[in-house]
Amino acid sequence: MLRICAVSLLATLLWAAEPADWIVSARWVLTMDREGRLIENGAVAVRGARIAAVGTKAEIERRYRGRKLDCGPCLLAPGLVNAHTHAPMSLMRGLADDRRLQEWLEQYIFPAEARNVDAEFVRWGTRLACLEMMLSGTTTFAEMYYFEDFVAEAAREAGMRAVLGETIIDFPAPDFKTPQAALEFTERFIRRFRDDPLVVPAVAPHSHETTSEAVFRASRALANRYGVPLMTHLAETRQGREQAEKLHGLSPVRLLESWGVFEGRTVAAHVVWVDEGDLEILRQRTVGIAHCPSSNAKLASGVAPVTRMLAMDLAVGLGTDGPAGSNNDFNLFEEMDLAAKLQKIVTGDPRALSARQAVEMATIRGARALGLADRIGSLEPGKLADLITVRLDRVHAVPLYDVYSQMVYALKGADVRDVMVHGRWLVRDGRPLTLDAAQVTARAAAYAQRIRTSLAGSRP
Amino acid sequence: MLRICAVSLLATLLWAAEPADWIVSARWVLTMDREGRLIENGAVAVRGARIAAVGTKAEIERRYRGRKLDCGPCLLAPGLVNAHTHAPMSLMRGLADDRRLQEWLEQYIFPAEARNVDAEFVRWGTRLACLEMMLSGTTTFAEMYYFEDFVAEAAREAGMRAVLGETIIDFPAPDFKTPQAALEFTERFIRRFRDDPLVVPAVAPHSHETTSEAVFRASRALANRYGVPLMTHLAETRQGREQAEKLHGLSPVRLLESWGVFEGRTVAAHVVWVDEGDLEILRQRTVGIAHCPSSNAKLASGVAPVTRMLAMDLAVGLGTDGPAGSNNDFNLFEEMDLAAKLQKIVTGDPRALSARQAVEMATIRGARALGLADRIGSLEPGKLADLITVRLDRVHAVPLYDVYSQMVYALKGADVRDVMVHGRWLVRDGRPLTLDAAQVTARAAAYAQRIRTSLAGSRP
Repeated sequence: MLRICAVSLLATLLWAAEPADWIVSARWVLTMDREGRLIENGAVAVRGARIAAVGTKAEIERRYRGRKLDCGPCLLAPGLVNAHTHAPMSLMRGLADDRRLQEWLEQYIFPAEARNVDAEFVRWGTRLACLEMMLSGTTTFAEMYYFEDFVAEAAREAGMRAVLGETIIDFPAPDFKTPQAALEFTERFIRRFRDDPLVVPAVAPHSHETTSEAVFRASRALANRYGVPLMTHLAETRQGREQAEKLHGLSPVRLLESWGVFEGRTVAAHVVWVDEGDLEILRQRTVGIAHCPSSNAKLASGVAPVTRMLAMDLAVGLGTDGPAGSNNDFNLFEEMDLAAKLQKIVTGDPRALSARQAVEMATIRGARALGLADRIGSLEPGKLADLITVRLDRVHAVPLYDVYSQMVYALKGADVRDVMVHGRWLVRDGRPLTLDAAQVTARAAAYAQRIRTSLAGSRP
Repeated sequence: MLRICAVSLLATLLWAAEPADWIVSARWVLTMDREGRLIENGAVAVRGARIAAVGTKAEIERRYRGRKLDCGPCLLAPGLVNAHTHAPMSLMRGLADDRRLQEWLEQYIFPAEARNVDAEFVRWGTRLACLEMMLSGTTTFAEMYYFEDFVAEAAREAGMRAVLGETIIDFPAPDFKTPQAALEFTERFIRRFRDDPLVVPAVAPHSHETTSEAVFRASRALANRYGVPLMTHLAETRQGREQAEKLHGLSPVRLLESWGVFEGRTVAAHVVWVDEGDLEILRQRTVGIAHCPSSNAKLASGVAPVTRMLAMDLAVGLGTDGPAGSNNDFNLFEEMDLAAKLQKIVTGDPRALSARQAVEMATIRGARALGLADRIGSLEPGKLADLITVRLDRVHAVPLYDVYSQMVYALKGADVRDVMVHGRWLVRDGRPLTLDAAQVTARAAAYAQRIRTSLAGSRP
């Protein structure tokens, strides 16, 4: 009897020979793959940094052996992609809400930045942002700010995937006083991080309103020299569009097109004030778009024509934008929900931007926007193991009729249970593993005190 | 020495003689009282069902003795008021999203209701809704559905405050086949619950689209006979307005005015398709309004002119509407956020509907909408003890510059820690005390299975 058992065990081990580091299983696996597979009682096998296989739990457990995480009544999904933010601004969350853009910038953000932003500010702000992002299911973020090497270090420390670019702007910034200096820094930044497994360096001229043609052209050339993406703000406000038309006789999109900005991989944030011709240029140039519904709503910028963008199959993802003024958090569950609702309102059609399309934007389409769709954005063998589990058993998440609807309209960032990036667990059972939340929040409170004091003398 | 101590202790006890059942303290107390007091290191003393005092923690602990709950880095605020919902529809959460209203109603909701809604459905659906509402900080809800006595029983069991009206409609409903039968039931319902400490019975004719003048007049007369409010849907859709104009030559508001509907306490849900003259009628009649931003967005109904309503100082609160199709949850934190963002978009002004106004709508103004502002909606001595604590220490809630901004744009329903209604704790440290969440979610899943099966034969 013992001998039969041993033989049987050996046979099982030999047959189930493929090793995996993790077998993650859940009630529902939302793959977001090309076939749109939704697997009931599914699992993902992870080996090293990559997904080895996706299938039913029974099948994966037959084929693989490895440590198991069965999260039970959960959704297992690709990690969410935040296609546009300014992470260190977490330290100015809610500093000055419900104000006009000029007042907000000139009386609060610019002086607060001039007096407070340094390398350590950026490090702690990024840590806070990374904590919030990972705890609400984001595994990749694209961001542009200052002291970008400290953003990169904090993102690596957190274990998050990030597309990062130092802001290049024609005004003195907290770190570099000229765009030339920022460009030179960017080249060093690219050389330092271009082989990093998590950080994708980028070149980030701020916007056509604040950055000259020469600087945009130099940015494009630099990006193309190293094969990295260029990130910028584009057509965010009506005033910006009017300014471009007045100064150059062109829409913001046509202006950047005339400057050759789109002749290489580009990610454009906002893209609100665009016409059909602009969209056609973005389509032809395969420009990635970061739709930022909360920011565009909160700052009264407008509503981007996302329904039209999707009909044209543009690569449009979701961004939270920065959490000071334009938004107050980094929560992609809220952006999915708001994106869908805003499109229904502006089109007058409740079928516009369906739940499934919203999930797509937060995952595979966002990955496309960042030029990373070959590596992330869906659960498929060979892709990097960036995945999340989301609890489906809380009272606001039952009953369940449709997984996509539930994800967009009912589930919350706080329902995220486990988060893996590049095969490494960053969050388990709602607890962050790579950063110390108590330490980070204490430092954030101290920064807030310093920022308040720094503004005390100058505010009206 | 011992004698001095004893005398001192006795003196302290005598001086601090006022008894309280609870002294609840927090880093910030958001009173929403007339002076808009925001108390740092504040506390509320509760005696029986009422608030005895509100002040600094030091002051309240000097004046009162009683059991203490110090929630530390928290916000202590009035319980939130959901001014319009359909609670038992929780069991159909997400049943059929992203569809046109007619398709949604005729192919999903009406058949699902006809085949499944009975007294037990309503009881379990209300339990699920109450759990979700209390866990996200709602202490009072106004709702209209069927088998309303079972809604009332479940709400009482949950310990929630509720304004409840049996839907009176000119079509056969799951319980009553005629509006006359529903009216007769409503009178029995009012007599049963009119002295209830938690339930406020109401008369709830459905809407001008579905309920005749005679039934509206009978409803108003019944409400006035017992001094209870009348609740109805009003001017929700463009089609509804066009129908009223075509059939009666009047806007929905003027139509109900001509029917005498506003001659008594009234709560109107939605109020999207209204002009200045309509709003003036609502102002003169002091009609309470339940603004439902998620529902109006998700169903593409439009955006109510809330900025104008607030400028006129109308009693406009927030409602989630039902969670099947029109929304997918009962979360007033999300409604505050969305209400503010939608007004900024439609007015083009980021100052429209400030965070403070949004908090007002979810608390004291919502209480005014329901005619309960003398009893709830703010933390003031003499008012009923309906209060919540909300955690301020999570990573998405730091740093803190402005309490109102944080509440509307950063805090989540899941940050609610403790909930008290009528002096009784319903939630402590995120755990519900009055209902069994595991039992309720299990029943909800079973109902979903039944509903799916019941629709299987008839769906396209």
